[in-house]
Amino acid sequence: MRFIEGGVCAAKGYKASGVHCGIRKQTTKKDLALIVSDKKASAAAVYTQNLVKGAPIAVTKANIKDGKAMAVICNSGNANTCNANGIEIAEQMCELTEKYAGISKNDVVVASTGVIGQPLDIEPIASKMEDLVSELSYNGSSNAAAAIMTTDTVKKETAVSFEIGGVECRIGGIAKGSGMIHPNMATMLVFVTSDVAISPELLQKALSEDVQTSFNMISVDGDTSTNDMVTVLANGMAGNKEITEEGEDFEAFKKALNTVTVYLCRKIAGDGEGASKLLECKVTGAKTDKAAKGSAKSVICSSLLKAAMFGADANWGRVLCALGYSGEDLDVDKIDVRFKSCKGEILVCKDGSGVDFSEEKAKEILLEKEIEILVDLNDGEYSATAWGCDLTYDYVKINGDYRS
Amino acid sequence: MRFIEGGVCAAKGYKASGVHCGIRKQTTKKDLALIVSDKKASAAAVYTQNLVKGAPIAVTKANIKDGKAMAVICNSGNANTCNANGIEIAEQMCELTEKYAGISKNDVVVASTGVIGQPLDIEPIASKMEDLVSELSYNGSSNAAAAIMTTDTVKKETAVSFEIGGVECRIGGIAKGSGMIHPNMATMLVFVTSDVAISPELLQKALSEDVQTSFNMISVDGDTSTNDMVTVLANGMAGNKEITEEGEDFEAFKKALNTVTVYLCRKIAGDGEGASKLLECKVTGAKTDKAAKGSAKSVICSSLLKAAMFGADANWGRVLCALGYSGEDLDVDKIDVRFKSCKGEILVCKDGSGVDFSEEKAKEILLEKEIEILVDLNDGEYSATAWGCDLTYDYVKINGDYRS
Repeated sequence: MRFIEGGVCAAKGYKASGVHCGIRKQTTKKDLALIVSDKKASAAAVYTQNLVKGAPIAVTKANIKDGKAMAVICNSGNANTCNANGIEIAEQMCELTEKYAGISKNDVVVASTGVIGQPLDIEPIASKMEDLVSELSYNGSSNAAAAIMTTDTVKKETAVSFEIGGVECRIGGIAKGSGMIHPNMATMLVFVTSDVAISPELLQKALSEDVQTSFNMISVDGDTSTNDMVTVLANGMAGNKEITEEGEDFEAFKKALNTVTVYLCRKIAGDGEGASKLLECKVTGAKTDKAAKGSAKSVICSSLLKAAMFGADANWGRVLCALGYSGEDLDVDKIDVRFKSCKGEILVCKDGSGVDFSEEKAKEILLEKEIEILVDLNDGEYSATAWGCDLTYDYVKINGDYRS
Repeated sequence: MRFIEGGVCAAKGYKASGVHCGIRKQTTKKDLALIVSDKKASAAAVYTQNLVKGAPIAVTKANIKDGKAMAVICNSGNANTCNANGIEIAEQMCELTEKYAGISKNDVVVASTGVIGQPLDIEPIASKMEDLVSELSYNGSSNAAAAIMTTDTVKKETAVSFEIGGVECRIGGIAKGSGMIHPNMATMLVFVTSDVAISPELLQKALSEDVQTSFNMISVDGDTSTNDMVTVLANGMAGNKEITEEGEDFEAFKKALNTVTVYLCRKIAGDGEGASKLLECKVTGAKTDKAAKGSAKSVICSSLLKAAMFGADANWGRVLCALGYSGEDLDVDKIDVRFKSCKGEILVCKDGSGVDFSEEKAKEILLEKEIEILVDLNDGEYSATAWGCDLTYDYVKINGDYRS
């Protein structure tokens, strides 16, 4: 397997585009994205578990109920959530896709991201559909990736090439994250495309299993969004023998999918609202898978630890504290904690108590942009990784007045 | 019932003091407190549910196992947690209290607050015990309240006078809060004293019930501390007929206790680390008590909402979002949300959707220091209140380098 260029257009038969339609005032910010497959594709999705759900989620669910889709349309700047006419507007976005791109409205995945509770005007979208479709290109991934961004500071796209039964296949994706990131069964918007031939059932199975160790293990601020959605389209244009059961081919696909999703997870966490650092908590030696995941997630979610990491402060007591309230069954007296970055690794806690360490060395390690928090529970065979970011002045600034 | 002066010394027979012993470098900051009852008192306590527990908690538990205590000693600047010799040091603090104040070491409540994972040196404490005891005074509450502060910016003390069976009784308390505030069965350090005569069993019952609606309903940052502790001493010196069963007298005591604890809750939340505003979320119309409490707590804990409140931004979508991921059984389409302060009240969401409202009026309301977030679930008879604070630049600043 190797990383390749092309993002959501890396797989065969996918075009994408992104334009500024006017939902966002700033004219240099694209706010409408379209992804189209040349062939009808197997489709799978996972959605937010928040009881408050964006209107597009209901429409997308209905459209891919048959396991098939051919296009994704997504706007940023307005979440189309908690509005009286949300469903109607989401359906109109599908109808516009049918009218301008010639794709059945029932084969459209529709998504929105941005502020909650303000009516989404269909006019700007309708007025730019012609441009959006005419700009569709097999090299359009980065335009689409730009158009789905809200407070994201970098575009998030990746792709890999791999083999199934001797046939070269590709899978790629784009994502938007930033704030309100604490997914439960799904995350913010992630659109993945592949040219693998795979049945809708197995595609859904692969995705549902994948998110347990990828998007469900990120947190920026503990807030589970109302609009989280991850979708995968797989149009079969690679020419592999269709995957219709578990086995070697399915595992190869899952591995490639996980490479793409973990890459996007790291990008989303590292570009969390206001973040200056990516935090990666690796828990080993847990009694159960649940204890491993719960422990890693609890550390990543601690506001106090996040603030300490912003200050490059080796305050490992906050790691212990977060493990202690994780709700998992842990033996506190067995826990070891290390901090690690490209500048080295340092043991700060052994058997649940502090050890002498060089504050200077710890500072040097923690001043880097990617920090690993290594927790060994020394109590079993399970491990898990969770991703987060530091808590900074900019997080407060961005969210103190997001709507203006 | 009426509020009176005197804090933890308002009840008959309680002396208190606070000195600088040198755990904290800053010589103007008191860091050692003592509270002593003239008579042996009924004692009750609740403690943190964090698996990582401060050493003083184990020692206090053992000492008040018989339902009796006579003194409280507490240092700030070091939590005496995750140290190899923590228990030994906590026991030495009790022994020093016996030696200098003449109170059996087994009747001492001991507590510590501050940084986790650094050895606590007994020397500074031992060297100032004589001063600490000689400064004990029936007017010493504010010295003790000052000595238990860490990043708190204001002293937290209160007291009320009330009647039981025609006899005037008093109950008062001091507290420290600030960061790592998300109690579970107990909160940061709160010491309450009363001159009521009440059996240890009923005192514990009153306290255990009280914290469910008081300290367990506060959150500053979602981090449950390792050292949370609330204790109540009741020495019987008011002269009421001892409360040994539930009934009118017990209810009168509980009401007075709740007045003191809710006052301290509001103080702790409003003085959360970096806080510029007190947030009070009142949920009504819930199907169950659990749904009411869970909903109110979820709103108060949302980083996104907390940041919006800092910016006086009426971003009610974040209230809905937090209710949606609370895990409680709610009907989203019935929810109404209002913001309220001394400047008035404004409806921002009706039946789960936005309503037209004056942004100018909302801003005026939200610029105040105490904000009420009123959520009507319109789905039942239960209600609950939770307290929190906004998320500010100062929270990040304080916690980015707490140890230095």
